[in-house]
Amino acid sequence: MHTLKEILYAKSVAVVGASASPKKTGYTILKNILDGGFEGEVYPINPKEKSILGKTCYADVADIPGDADLLVICIPAARVPAVLLSAAHKGTKGAVIISGGFSEIGNEELDRELREAAKESGIRVIGPNCQGINFTLRNLCATWPLVQEKGEIGIVAQSGTIGAEMELLSQNDGLGISCFAALGNKADISDVDFINFFAQEEHTKVIALNMEGIREPSAFLEAVTAASKKKPVVILKPGRTAQGAKAVASHTSSIAGNDRLFSVFCRKYGILRADDITEFYDFCKISACLKAPAGKRLLVVTSSGGSGILAVDTAEKFGFTFGALTAALKEKLTELLPAQCVLSNPLDLTGDADAARFETVLSTLADREDAQEYDAVLAIFGDPIPGAADVIERMRNRLSLPIVVSYLGGGSVQKQEVVKMGGLRIPVFPTPERAITALGALTERKLHKKEVEK
Amino acid sequence: MHTLKEILYAKSVAVVGASASPKKTGYTILKNILDGGFEGEVYPINPKEKSILGKTCYADVADIPGDADLLVICIPAARVPAVLLSAAHKGTKGAVIISGGFSEIGNEELDRELREAAKESGIRVIGPNCQGINFTLRNLCATWPLVQEKGEIGIVAQSGTIGAEMELLSQNDGLGISCFAALGNKADISDVDFINFFAQEEHTKVIALNMEGIREPSAFLEAVTAASKKKPVVILKPGRTAQGAKAVASHTSSIAGNDRLFSVFCRKYGILRADDITEFYDFCKISACLKAPAGKRLLVVTSSGGSGILAVDTAEKFGFTFGALTAALKEKLTELLPAQCVLSNPLDLTGDADAARFETVLSTLADREDAQEYDAVLAIFGDPIPGAADVIERMRNRLSLPIVVSYLGGGSVQKQEVVKMGGLRIPVFPTPERAITALGALTERKLHKKEVEK
Repeated sequence: MHTLKEILYAKSVAVVGASASPKKTGYTILKNILDGGFEGEVYPINPKEKSILGKTCYADVADIPGDADLLVICIPAARVPAVLLSAAHKGTKGAVIISGGFSEIGNEELDRELREAAKESGIRVIGPNCQGINFTLRNLCATWPLVQEKGEIGIVAQSGTIGAEMELLSQNDGLGISCFAALGNKADISDVDFINFFAQEEHTKVIALNMEGIREPSAFLEAVTAASKKKPVVILKPGRTAQGAKAVASHTSSIAGNDRLFSVFCRKYGILRADDITEFYDFCKISACLKAPAGKRLLVVTSSGGSGILAVDTAEKFGFTFGALTAALKEKLTELLPAQCVLSNPLDLTGDADAARFETVLSTLADREDAQEYDAVLAIFGDPIPGAADVIERMRNRLSLPIVVSYLGGGSVQKQEVVKMGGLRIPVFPTPERAITALGALTERKLHKKEVEK
Repeated sequence: MHTLKEILYAKSVAVVGASASPKKTGYTILKNILDGGFEGEVYPINPKEKSILGKTCYADVADIPGDADLLVICIPAARVPAVLLSAAHKGTKGAVIISGGFSEIGNEELDRELREAAKESGIRVIGPNCQGINFTLRNLCATWPLVQEKGEIGIVAQSGTIGAEMELLSQNDGLGISCFAALGNKADISDVDFINFFAQEEHTKVIALNMEGIREPSAFLEAVTAASKKKPVVILKPGRTAQGAKAVASHTSSIAGNDRLFSVFCRKYGILRADDITEFYDFCKISACLKAPAGKRLLVVTSSGGSGILAVDTAEKFGFTFGALTAALKEKLTELLPAQCVLSNPLDLTGDADAARFETVLSTLADREDAQEYDAVLAIFGDPIPGAADVIERMRNRLSLPIVVSYLGGGSVQKQEVVKMGGLRIPVFPTPERAITALGALTERKLHKKEVEK
């Protein structure tokens, strides 16, 4: 049986149902594969066209001159099984079936036909009724929108929209992803295959999983607990409430299951459970960027006093503490900083602080034993402060503590600095509350693991 | 005594400490007033320069040829009281004092001097130690960053950064603000003055208040309860936790006070209390855009099934219900929509839905009595769906229900549509959870008011 790895590393791709009309999915996907810079062969399949987007068109998969390792299919559902059979002698390992119209609308017969065709042809299936895959490490964007930024987040989603939003957020922040897959009806390849693949894929540092139900509980639990030992797993599983579970049943015929039990399970195995899309992304971001702090002693360095207090308020929920600066450190900083700075924790550098003032504090801390008083640093840049990314980059190499950042109130300077931080894999959040919530989740996972390993 | 209104409607502004160096606050503020398009006279005051940014420079406020209704002061603190006295015969009504170095660093003596100078000169003071004001309705941006978008949100903030972030978020979304003021140490003009001003200012539809402590409780309570009867008031008040309250004391010497009592007070008077910056902005956005629903019966129309479920999950907290479609409506929609649509609530138009499909549903609803089955509609656009703003604009005029929107997974198309919706004052949120949370807060305020008025 072909593996997911073979499919993702396809050397040739045929887009079945490629279209010359920019409004059609079959056009968008072909264009994204080409614009994304896929280096293998790309074959549009459409009996009515000679060529699309400069590529020779073929009437049928069987007509392609070479092999077609991967099919991406966007034609009416009824014709999909026949396509799989026609590709039997083309070395095809997998098919991503975008087409909808199978079991999700009650067409169980067609579903059965599809499974049989897959079995007979030996082709593994992603979908049907899905939004495709994007394996950035190979520039293979067989989905929409086009996202090319390479990163360390591996996303497998039941909902194409939620997955796409994760891709777009990562791209906007300069963070990128390693892979995205929308699974749709999961006729064959499931979360379990992707979890296992991501667990051993070296570029992927965090596994992001959006799922509505668990089809094969024991295989799922085995895969996810094994993966969670190797790297952080973040799960967004809607259907938490009674009304939500009902909506799940109507959406993908999945059973949301006992939600409290699922939460207990996540806690037990150090899986980060996100309550909403914002947490889903934030937990992935911090996991991709930061080594978890060893404890909960936090130092806040801020140019915005008000934002520092919001961080402290949020931190209480996670049990973070804010130890006072030592007398010796205070004395040293009194020499180095302007009089209006408040030498407390949060350390308020006040509104006229530039990046150099942050560097003064962090380098002083790095040069002294005082750094041992804390497990992590939260740096809050409030205002347009150029050079913030460079300071954090220099200081995280000197300071032995994880640094998490919040940047707000900075307009266009902020936008540039945030993208720069994304590229440097510095975890930066648009509010102090989100920074603390993400840090809290990461820290609790680490402390839990330590506890379990005892 | 001069009123806040006289100050904000100043016809002439002198920037005391205007600078020719782009790194200085005195440069930024002068530039923002000029670039912002202020139509009155603008006078840079700096004894060392002949002109700055093309404007003739004066050595002292007393040297200005005409009046100076408003001073914006960014010179060292010690020299500020003398400036107020020197302006005594210039018709000056108010001074925005950006300079820090007063009571916030323990310099109580200078604070007293400032208050005496203000009293003697009859000049009202905003600040000191503040980030200035931005009265967009008069193009008066005496602060940073430059934000020009006019809107219905009136912001008064203790923290300049939090206020500036609110301005930037509003600008990015095409929503804009009516006014922003950062109050700093509040030597004279306080939250109370701004609350009273916003309550009667006709363009302002929602009052956004960020505060750390309450200096004059009875005046504050009177102002805020009176304002809340006229328009929504949203409050972000950090220092909610024990550690946060300690940080408040160190930041602005304010007393955070009994937080639970404050929450009870907010609930009693229908004040929307935000827990974090995200809610602060979201609650203001929905209040500026939407008439509150009359009840909690919600219809979700979505192109993303997974996102619809997240909305339902979040809605449970607020007691929203999702009544089934009537048989007659289902029958009608079956005729009009493609087979893969799920005619339930959430109504899943599925991933290939375009704006026209949303219009089909909303206009069918508008033409029938079924609209009476619901109190509000949540439309979720997942994917790049052009024309979404136009459809909502047309349908909200035909449908008698408030419509709240979430748009996600839409990349560059989404960005355009979101700004367009902002301009049309359609409340649009980047996740379904945030849309529901904002709608929940607005609805609960309305139902509470109804309850009280009984």
